[in-house]
Amino acid sequence: MATRALGRAGLALVAAVSDGLQRASEQGSRVRVACSGGPDSLALAAAVAVCARRDPALLAEALVVDHQLQPGSREVAHAAVDAVRGLGLPARTVAVQVPHSGEGPEAAARRARYEALAAPDAAGGRRPDLVLLGHTLDDQAETVLLGLVRGSGIRSLAGMPAHFGSAPQFWRPLLGVRRADTERACVEWGLAPWHDPQNRDDRFTRSRLRHRVLPVLTAELGEGVIEALARTATLATQDADYLDALTSSALTTIMGDGGLDCARLADQPAALQGRLVRRWLATVGIVGLDFERTAAVLALVTHWRGQKGVDLPGGHRVVRRAGVLFLDR
Amino acid sequence: MATRALGRAGLALVAAVSDGLQRASEQGSRVRVACSGGPDSLALAAAVAVCARRDPALLAEALVVDHQLQPGSREVAHAAVDAVRGLGLPARTVAVQVPHSGEGPEAAARRARYEALAAPDAAGGRRPDLVLLGHTLDDQAETVLLGLVRGSGIRSLAGMPAHFGSAPQFWRPLLGVRRADTERACVEWGLAPWHDPQNRDDRFTRSRLRHRVLPVLTAELGEGVIEALARTATLATQDADYLDALTSSALTTIMGDGGLDCARLADQPAALQGRLVRRWLATVGIVGLDFERTAAVLALVTHWRGQKGVDLPGGHRVVRRAGVLFLDR
Repeated sequence: MATRALGRAGLALVAAVSDGLQRASEQGSRVRVACSGGPDSLALAAAVAVCARRDPALLAEALVVDHQLQPGSREVAHAAVDAVRGLGLPARTVAVQVPHSGEGPEAAARRARYEALAAPDAAGGRRPDLVLLGHTLDDQAETVLLGLVRGSGIRSLAGMPAHFGSAPQFWRPLLGVRRADTERACVEWGLAPWHDPQNRDDRFTRSRLRHRVLPVLTAELGEGVIEALARTATLATQDADYLDALTSSALTTIMGDGGLDCARLADQPAALQGRLVRRWLATVGIVGLDFERTAAVLALVTHWRGQKGVDLPGGHRVVRRAGVLFLDR
Repeated sequence: MATRALGRAGLALVAAVSDGLQRASEQGSRVRVACSGGPDSLALAAAVAVCARRDPALLAEALVVDHQLQPGSREVAHAAVDAVRGLGLPARTVAVQVPHSGEGPEAAARRARYEALAAPDAAGGRRPDLVLLGHTLDDQAETVLLGLVRGSGIRSLAGMPAHFGSAPQFWRPLLGVRRADTERACVEWGLAPWHDPQNRDDRFTRSRLRHRVLPVLTAELGEGVIEALARTATLATQDADYLDALTSSALTTIMGDGGLDCARLADQPAALQGRLVRRWLATVGIVGLDFERTAAVLALVTHWRGQKGVDLPGGHRVVRRAGVLFLDR
């Protein structure tokens, strides 16, 4: 591969990572690429390998997390490591135990994976400074559509952030790259990616969305729908971030007497009222209040006629006393 | 019908209009119901008829607009008038000429229809004060999905407003009512609605969305998707309204020397920057700037390296001179 000219798809992938990796190299950052062996992350590892060959100062490795949930997962992980090493990039596997937890198997696997990606290396050395994830524009479009069908507002339309976390920071450099281009890049680089059978498992909502809904959407409305969904994520992220920041500022002014001042809450714009209620309740440990309950709590402020209060999950209740909302436990 | 008890669907429709119509009656407002003869607007007219029978002070009529675009449209319009009169509500038709215009046949028909709905009555009397439109929760869900696939931000996800305009004000009381319930209400009331063949015409994007995309979406993800889309519209409307208001306030502070001050624009949050650029250009007659061009104009502010400017439709160009954005014509 070292002597082969880059193809169009490979060039696009290298372009997506090169500026960020140059900054990482200049700062002496340790870069870790999450690699499953699938086309997206294998192509991402290959693009990082190209940059590492050009810049010997770049400290980069690939990590293949073996979730040990499917038969043969160890072999898949080792094949991925071999493929990445063939590109000239250091690579290793780490096996994780995914606990049975209340959050569901997908969320538990994701948590275990991200913990392994952020962990110090096998020798007990330093954590990585930057972890690259291979999510593509198509993944982003699916995430936006998943958020839309939840109907929980623009934060759920914001999709996956390009950057999140610190020490290490996580980075998704391929959110502007189509999945088909990662597959083309694998072909150009002579890589044989693994295709996770779970991605075709129709018990998963995302899989049904990917294989049954989005093909109909693009067939009827055009391939541009995918880019439009990803664009929505970008715009919704900016809007949601700003509205969240305004909510933080406003919250301090409407808290009072251990509760939320109804008159001051009523003076806030409609866009902030629901956010303020949810943020206030989050400060006392009640997160993810749904649309109907948020509206019911707000009705204690905007349509007060002596309601008894609003029952929340966990046996809590929001009540209004003397013009202030309180949480009774 | 006068003596028949209301069914479940009919009750829901009457509940959706009764408060608003009571206010209209108390204020002496003239109410006009837009009726195409289709199930949504026929059921809406029937619900208004129920309220008018209960409250003789309510000044209400139905108007059936004949667009004269399809063969037999006159007969369809007259059949709708007969059906509404059978409910005890005054009704009449008005025939409009839909001009051939650059905006496309659907937009031209809508404009002609809304003008007719807002016009004084046949005797040249007063305009209506309130015009009721029969759009349902399903129409709203389709509108949100159409906005999403345009990818032009949360305003396009806000769907159709429940209220808009003044003198007359337009009102969509059925945005919380499912289309199936308007059809059930027609059955309950013994009405035989007309089914517009255009609603099944696959040349129209909305029709493809309704008949090919949304059935797949609800089959794969559940019927709750429709409510979730409508809920998104409610939340996105609040957010978009507030961000638009903040944009208006901010615009006055960053206008200067006949252009937009780059340093002050750069100080604004990302959520407002694109809106400020689009709002500024709208004040000089350039509306509907797309995502790419908005980003290119913003790059003159945030990534200035002496670019020549950004070409806009109509031969205009945004240029940066001495730290100020100007529009050259």
